[in-house]
Amino acid sequence: MSSIKIGISLGDPGGIGPEVTLKALFSVSKLPKAEYILFGSRKIIEKETNILGHNINIPDYNPQKKDSPTQLAICSIPYPLNSVKYGYACKENGKISFEYFKKAVNEAKKGSLHAVVTAPISKQSWKLAGINWAGHTEYLRKDYPEAIMSFFSRHLNVALFTHHISLKKALVQIKKKNLCDFFVRLNKFSQEARNKKFHLLVPGLNPHAGENGLLGNEEITEIHPAINAARKKGVSISGPYPPDTVFKKAYKDKNKIVASLYHDQGLIAFKIVSFEDGVNTTLGLPFIRTSPDHGTAFDIVGKGTADPQSMIEAIKLAVQFSQNQRS
Amino acid sequence: MSSIKIGISLGDPGGIGPEVTLKALFSVSKLPKAEYILFGSRKIIEKETNILGHNINIPDYNPQKKDSPTQLAICSIPYPLNSVKYGYACKENGKISFEYFKKAVNEAKKGSLHAVVTAPISKQSWKLAGINWAGHTEYLRKDYPEAIMSFFSRHLNVALFTHHISLKKALVQIKKKNLCDFFVRLNKFSQEARNKKFHLLVPGLNPHAGENGLLGNEEITEIHPAINAARKKGVSISGPYPPDTVFKKAYKDKNKIVASLYHDQGLIAFKIVSFEDGVNTTLGLPFIRTSPDHGTAFDIVGKGTADPQSMIEAIKLAVQFSQNQRS
Repeated sequence: MSSIKIGISLGDPGGIGPEVTLKALFSVSKLPKAEYILFGSRKIIEKETNILGHNINIPDYNPQKKDSPTQLAICSIPYPLNSVKYGYACKENGKISFEYFKKAVNEAKKGSLHAVVTAPISKQSWKLAGINWAGHTEYLRKDYPEAIMSFFSRHLNVALFTHHISLKKALVQIKKKNLCDFFVRLNKFSQEARNKKFHLLVPGLNPHAGENGLLGNEEITEIHPAINAARKKGVSISGPYPPDTVFKKAYKDKNKIVASLYHDQGLIAFKIVSFEDGVNTTLGLPFIRTSPDHGTAFDIVGKGTADPQSMIEAIKLAVQFSQNQRS
Repeated sequence: MSSIKIGISLGDPGGIGPEVTLKALFSVSKLPKAEYILFGSRKIIEKETNILGHNINIPDYNPQKKDSPTQLAICSIPYPLNSVKYGYACKENGKISFEYFKKAVNEAKKGSLHAVVTAPISKQSWKLAGINWAGHTEYLRKDYPEAIMSFFSRHLNVALFTHHISLKKALVQIKKKNLCDFFVRLNKFSQEARNKKFHLLVPGLNPHAGENGLLGNEEITEIHPAINAARKKGVSISGPYPPDTVFKKAYKDKNKIVASLYHDQGLIAFKIVSFEDGVNTTLGLPFIRTSPDHGTAFDIVGKGTADPQSMIEAIKLAVQFSQNQRS
């Protein structure tokens, strides 16, 4: 492949995915040069294009075409109904948003794309369609069980040791071996993505990182030993730090990632400081995958008010990481 | 009492407590008019006063004196050694910082003070001195078991359902009755403090607030029923919200408090957005108690670089809440 090829799955047709995707693609000055391939229904894409006042004819995607790359193409999967269902979860939108995503992932697996950017799907729509994956990341982990859910913004970088499980179950996972494996993988994958090492900051699990065992002992029995073991394997890592101060140490420092022990430990901090520029990234795949850090926002669909900033950042990060992996 | 009387305990003499306290008291333009009484050792206070370039004679505190109130007085408890130990935890500093605090609290209990502002103590110093309270709040809860640890800043207000216990133990406390009692107390105490109701926002315990039981069921079995029960008792309350988005709903809204379920859920969010202006408040005492939201910072003691902003905010909030309770 000569130029960077970025696939974008359109997300749930009833959500703001189509709007933020097209808005992002038409804010050309903000996007790096690359070939962008939209995985979605032509009907929905063209409707959104018209709403945004662009009267252009987007060609079909042709993976065989090697020369004269197009800036934008559509890999269309026809919408199954005459009119699109907007603003709520339904099985048709669940089924087709899963197809957009799967098709893009398959192209990436074949090596036809460097990266896949995924617009938001509705888990409820997926469920109504009988698709039982908790989300994009969970589907990807089926084939790539070592993959890591991580989040990047100008303010903070975090990775999650556990994500879509209850807090009670997350606590059971806090074991030296699991943690050490996670730190080693995170170090490797994050370094591959940007061609440069990160320093990993590890929070404790308990208030004040357990205060020498006074407020919990996982720091002593599991977390500290895991950090030491990872360091011996060449990982640049420190901790465990008090969970309520570790994020300040990583604040606005692009060379640090907070290796968070559970979903909300990392995401409470990330989401309150990364207002519009947060990007969700799955590290450890043979291709890059990014996603804006918001949901379908059914309540504002069709109002034209959805902010494409997070989608723009997701596309920019996908291009940047793709370039790094090639260099 | 005619004017507002604020007691300030000096904190660990080896930490930055004396520095931030005196810096705050000399930034007179930033402080509201009140009688300030310092509970500390005269020797330490005068040394700090000289360092800051103020050549004044601070009178002794006289609780009987009703007329012609002094703006600043010292209730001195003599330092036990010839030279002060700076920059590390030790039993002498633990013992005397506990005495400063106890003396101030006793005056408040007697009704001689409206509020007590506590400069930071070292838990390790307390431990070395054989004082086994985990902190100011824990000591106060001995006599006032219903007291609530809460945090206020211009950016966010949070209260903690559980604080200095392990995360594992905190999970066990998540029961409908405990939670409902907490919401009712928080509503009552916070309203008393500022003479106006707050709206309480309740986070879930699990990722995405459990996603209808998919990622944990405490939201269904305990938290949601507790919210409903509290609402029936007149509490303005809503939730459970996803823990990683609820803090945005309360961001920069002075009429909302996030009723956090465990120490780091509330404090990860609070500390990353409240840089210098965070104030720790114990709600539900017969007097006001506030404290700056930082520790002894042994590493910067004596350098003159400690920032008094959080102490200034703690004093201002103490005066404000005291005025509210009187009005």
